[in-house]
Amino acid sequence: MRVAILAHEQFPERAKTAVGVLRYGDQEVVAVLDRDRAGDSIREYLDEPRIPNAPIVAGVEDAPEFDALIVGIAPIGGGFEASWRPDVRGALERGCDVYAGLHYQLNEDEEFARLAAEHDCELVDVRDPPDDLTVSEARAREVDATVVLAVGTDCSTGKMTAAMELREAAREEGLDAAVVPTGQTGILIEGWGIAVDRTISDFTAGAVERMVQAVGDHDVVFVEGQGALAHPAYSAVTAGIVHGSMPEKLVLCHEAGRQAVHGYESFSLPPAEEYAALYERFADPVAESAVAAGMLNTSGIDDDQQAREAIESYAEAIDAPATDPIRFEASAVLDTLV
Amino acid sequence: MRVAILAHEQFPERAKTAVGVLRYGDQEVVAVLDRDRAGDSIREYLDEPRIPNAPIVAGVEDAPEFDALIVGIAPIGGGFEASWRPDVRGALERGCDVYAGLHYQLNEDEEFARLAAEHDCELVDVRDPPDDLTVSEARAREVDATVVLAVGTDCSTGKMTAAMELREAAREEGLDAAVVPTGQTGILIEGWGIAVDRTISDFTAGAVERMVQAVGDHDVVFVEGQGALAHPAYSAVTAGIVHGSMPEKLVLCHEAGRQAVHGYESFSLPPAEEYAALYERFADPVAESAVAAGMLNTSGIDDDQQAREAIESYAEAIDAPATDPIRFEASAVLDTLV
Repeated sequence: MRVAILAHEQFPERAKTAVGVLRYGDQEVVAVLDRDRAGDSIREYLDEPRIPNAPIVAGVEDAPEFDALIVGIAPIGGGFEASWRPDVRGALERGCDVYAGLHYQLNEDEEFARLAAEHDCELVDVRDPPDDLTVSEARAREVDATVVLAVGTDCSTGKMTAAMELREAAREEGLDAAVVPTGQTGILIEGWGIAVDRTISDFTAGAVERMVQAVGDHDVVFVEGQGALAHPAYSAVTAGIVHGSMPEKLVLCHEAGRQAVHGYESFSLPPAEEYAALYERFADPVAESAVAAGMLNTSGIDDDQQAREAIESYAEAIDAPATDPIRFEASAVLDTLV
Repeated sequence: MRVAILAHEQFPERAKTAVGVLRYGDQEVVAVLDRDRAGDSIREYLDEPRIPNAPIVAGVEDAPEFDALIVGIAPIGGGFEASWRPDVRGALERGCDVYAGLHYQLNEDEEFARLAAEHDCELVDVRDPPDDLTVSEARAREVDATVVLAVGTDCSTGKMTAAMELREAAREEGLDAAVVPTGQTGILIEGWGIAVDRTISDFTAGAVERMVQAVGDHDVVFVEGQGALAHPAYSAVTAGIVHGSMPEKLVLCHEAGRQAVHGYESFSLPPAEEYAALYERFADPVAESAVAAGMLNTSGIDDDQQAREAIESYAEAIDAPATDPIRFEASAVLDTLV
């Protein structure tokens, strides 16, 4: 499938769905739409061999031929920005499907629904959960696999990345490893999953339990976490994932230097050691669990040596090995997890 | 409004909505429907002056004339039991409205919707949340009121009762006190509110924030909690309420003698002192909060002296004054809360 990815004004730092699909998806990306960076190319921002060097364009009219448009950004609250409308409209008029993972449902947008019908293409809201979810029975531990949950100190700290990179590292070691995708980017990459932040809160843990059971027996299952346990707005989602997945081990993801909750800057992040202890203490009554590794996003640090030092002090704080799975290797922490 | 309350096979111990409406609602209750206790009367089970002594009957056909049927029980999972169908059908055929707080939506039941239309009566699903909820902005603390949140060690430990009894006790002291109802029973009693366990998990904290803001400035606001922070299935709901309401004080509700999670008996409840510390530690990064009082449901203890002793040892465990607001007085713990 040839895709264009919409990431206006936010590529790449605040376009985590776009970057996730570029890095881990098996779609062929022909362009990124970002009107602020039109004329540049993807590799100028993300210099990784696995990432294709497609052009960045101002809108669908400048993109090479493609089969589907993916909305690759998600603002706080999951709304649809009016300024994206011409591109979605243009994609549908060209007969292309549109994928999005917003709270705003494209299928419920009158204009988009009409255009999709007219041009015989599909609107795919990957955040729309199944309607037969139920309460958790607290049986995720019965799966024959080491369940490892990637949690974070905040949103956008690399939980999805941790799960994807750890699966790859585990497979390279010859292990049978799987991922449970719990958010729109993971679902777009994997082609299945439930956006747990969109589930009814009574069923949030149950949705995660269902996915852990569905993915079934493996050597190791890496569950993508969401939100953060001390997040003022999203802790409900996180709580449901921690108790629903009943992990044996936790990987705590953090962005180097981040000291306050993104978008809620008056709320300080607890120190890493306290945050790790909070996750363990919260998990324990349902499923005893330990922070066994850390992932530190050091993309904001220019110097490799400084990045290594930041990782070392993070590892010391959480009392577990740590790495930056993008700058360095996820495999550095695999031994403590499997 | 004259109401009959459906509570088949579960009155009164496992019919908390029925008991809540009987105790705190301003509806005129003309009958309770419980086929196992037909021929008895309410006071044989609940001997409180404020509770009306209406008959218990086997079904709507035996009930005195009424205006609305309230479904007064809620099984784990919030489903609709087939054995309740004749009573709901019968109520609608008599031209009565039907109120329910189930996950199962009466309005989406074809037969009920048709009967309601035919007989010009209403199906009221009080658990149906507004469809314009958003993420929390973490601003509940800006309300000019002492916000007190009733939390629990499990479901059905008396959180709603605590909120209602504390409001009454505060008003008797001359304080301007309000309740924020977060569950179906509270909503049925108060005539407003949002069933937070039915909200999209990303918006759970936001729904609670909205209610705290809506109830506005008072001397003290008692927020009804839901679920429990160490509950394998419902912790997402609880997490959203704790962070969304940003309480200054917590009241920890517990049922004397309960040692395991109801319905999840392989999961032990953490000891009360650990549970109190878990709530505080979880709340702190968003809103510093202290367990300032305890409520112990001693209805399973026959002897008053033994009940007092149980309350004393519970108070010692959580290091805060405690009471049983039904058997004794909620006012016993009011001073530490307001």
